[in-house]
Amino acid sequence: MAPQPSDLAFVPFVSVDHMMGLIHHIGIETLLCDLADAIEADFKRWDLFDKTPRVASHSDVGVIELMPTSDGELYGFKYVNGHPKNTKEGLQTVTAFGLLADVESGYPKLLSEMTLLTALRTAATSAMAARHLAPKGAKSMAMIGNGAQAEFQCLAFKAICGIDEVRLFDVDPAATAKCAANLAGQGLKVVSCSSGEESMEGAQIITTCTADKQYATILTDNMVGSGVHINAIGGDCPGKTELHRDILMRSKIFVEYPPQTRIEGEIQQLEPDHPVTELWQVITGQTVGRRNDKEITLFDSVGFAIEDFSALRYVLSAIQGTPFSTQLDMLADPDDPRDLFGMLQRSSQ
Amino acid sequence: MAPQPSDLAFVPFVSVDHMMGLIHHIGIETLLCDLADAIEADFKRWDLFDKTPRVASHSDVGVIELMPTSDGELYGFKYVNGHPKNTKEGLQTVTAFGLLADVESGYPKLLSEMTLLTALRTAATSAMAARHLAPKGAKSMAMIGNGAQAEFQCLAFKAICGIDEVRLFDVDPAATAKCAANLAGQGLKVVSCSSGEESMEGAQIITTCTADKQYATILTDNMVGSGVHINAIGGDCPGKTELHRDILMRSKIFVEYPPQTRIEGEIQQLEPDHPVTELWQVITGQTVGRRNDKEITLFDSVGFAIEDFSALRYVLSAIQGTPFSTQLDMLADPDDPRDLFGMLQRSSQ
Repeated sequence: MAPQPSDLAFVPFVSVDHMMGLIHHIGIETLLCDLADAIEADFKRWDLFDKTPRVASHSDVGVIELMPTSDGELYGFKYVNGHPKNTKEGLQTVTAFGLLADVESGYPKLLSEMTLLTALRTAATSAMAARHLAPKGAKSMAMIGNGAQAEFQCLAFKAICGIDEVRLFDVDPAATAKCAANLAGQGLKVVSCSSGEESMEGAQIITTCTADKQYATILTDNMVGSGVHINAIGGDCPGKTELHRDILMRSKIFVEYPPQTRIEGEIQQLEPDHPVTELWQVITGQTVGRRNDKEITLFDSVGFAIEDFSALRYVLSAIQGTPFSTQLDMLADPDDPRDLFGMLQRSSQ
Repeated sequence: MAPQPSDLAFVPFVSVDHMMGLIHHIGIETLLCDLADAIEADFKRWDLFDKTPRVASHSDVGVIELMPTSDGELYGFKYVNGHPKNTKEGLQTVTAFGLLADVESGYPKLLSEMTLLTALRTAATSAMAARHLAPKGAKSMAMIGNGAQAEFQCLAFKAICGIDEVRLFDVDPAATAKCAANLAGQGLKVVSCSSGEESMEGAQIITTCTADKQYATILTDNMVGSGVHINAIGGDCPGKTELHRDILMRSKIFVEYPPQTRIEGEIQQLEPDHPVTELWQVITGQTVGRRNDKEITLFDSVGFAIEDFSALRYVLSAIQGTPFSTQLDMLADPDDPRDLFGMLQRSSQ
């Protein structure tokens, strides 16, 4: 009989189905709060991390990226694609999965779906940033772009920042209707708007999350009043922006990792030395965030590897003692580690 | 009832157990020949590929690497670690897995174990290179370093280059004994040697495949006679080499991808502008390989992403119609691609 793989050969795997089970088990708002805390904790130890801009492979229709990082004990990476044209073909714009490994041995410790997890960590990161940057007492958020990410953003801002009203707008009214229907009964006042201007009426926070791969102008300068916090999610690759340059020039700009954001974010429109503030320095108190009630703060978010790392670390901890993972026979583990060939030979017996 | 995932949500997965089944199903020598041909075919269309040095995360005890590439239709990457100290703890020095994805949609098409597959593709690449570079009629190979890779190298050189004798040496006689035992009955004359010098007696090909992460000198200059082909596998990361500098100075050096080899290969010992020949140019006939019977040819192999890509592409094709894969629920696939949140909500019903 062929020998059975040992425990070392197995890697815990969280499927999409298991991730959905885990989210319901914990509760989505609790999970978003936990994720925001996990990400904030890792931003506080920013210097520890191995940081590199993501490794992108661009084609005419999209991009495939690998986003690795390490804190010296754990190594993590995410595979993620971005294909805006996919929705027309019944596919997701973004799919993702990720891995955590032990730096000491190089052995994987977790493989997980990350399409859902990316939506959650993106929303948690946005709301965590807003907790530091948005005007005090913000209660109303404009949500521009009502695609796959929109509901997660709305719930994260409710759970983490205390938002009680969301004002939805999308160029496609069907997307707004979908988002409004999904948010019914979630404890938010949901206002469907027929223009970007209308969505911003009375909103202290503006979230833009659209998916076209082009230089778009979702917000123009005259639309944005003083004192708001802008959470710009959609401008996240070269050639893809959402905000008019004039808004950027009026805003205090906060970013995750400047070498990546200058290539991918809204600030790709600006000079390479345009001043920006790193969010982690606001979180640690090394620098100030919002300076007054009149200032426009802008979180130019492109998504950074440390956020995925935090999310995977959280999932690895959260699945313990739950049924929300299976074991994948992904690693060859011969009894004698130098005897890979012998393991292969014996498997045929 | 919660909706079931659609076909699009699933990614074929080849486990270690399935990979072993596939190897036995095809036959290891046939598979090595097929792999060599697949790799050679991709080296012939070298210019098509997106090439980048691997993305390495180094620690005191090892390295974790991501090796991405794309031919414009398929995208592939490999995760691989290298931890020489692992064997002392009963773990593999190298474990790996890899992925192929569709460039057009960004959706993964195959997830596969690659610990075994890396051993196979490394051996197939070595023998494919030797098919172009080794002296004509070579029948005997010295195999120095008798660890996990050794048997695969020996069988690849038998199947692809017509080697009929292998001369084994390792500083640890137990490794040589293991290798000799595994090779019994495989149609090779196996000679166990007690020194590096003895292993090289009469050998036209010298393969070095040792694992220490340090500047080692497995071969010194006076050990190497004229006319041999050296297949140097073990020097594959910064600070890790196997050959004395003087041998390099006497050899015509062939490499996979110069920007990576200059950092990781034997030639890290040389000036950054030391002349090297790219193997793909020999294969396409753009340049000459071995010039005469006296020349020492050296394939300074570090392993390149295209070889893994070729191997994954081969596996994706080879598993069709076999039982050697399962379906992983790795991708979120809502009916309406913009309705990720709705899919999550419905899963709890």
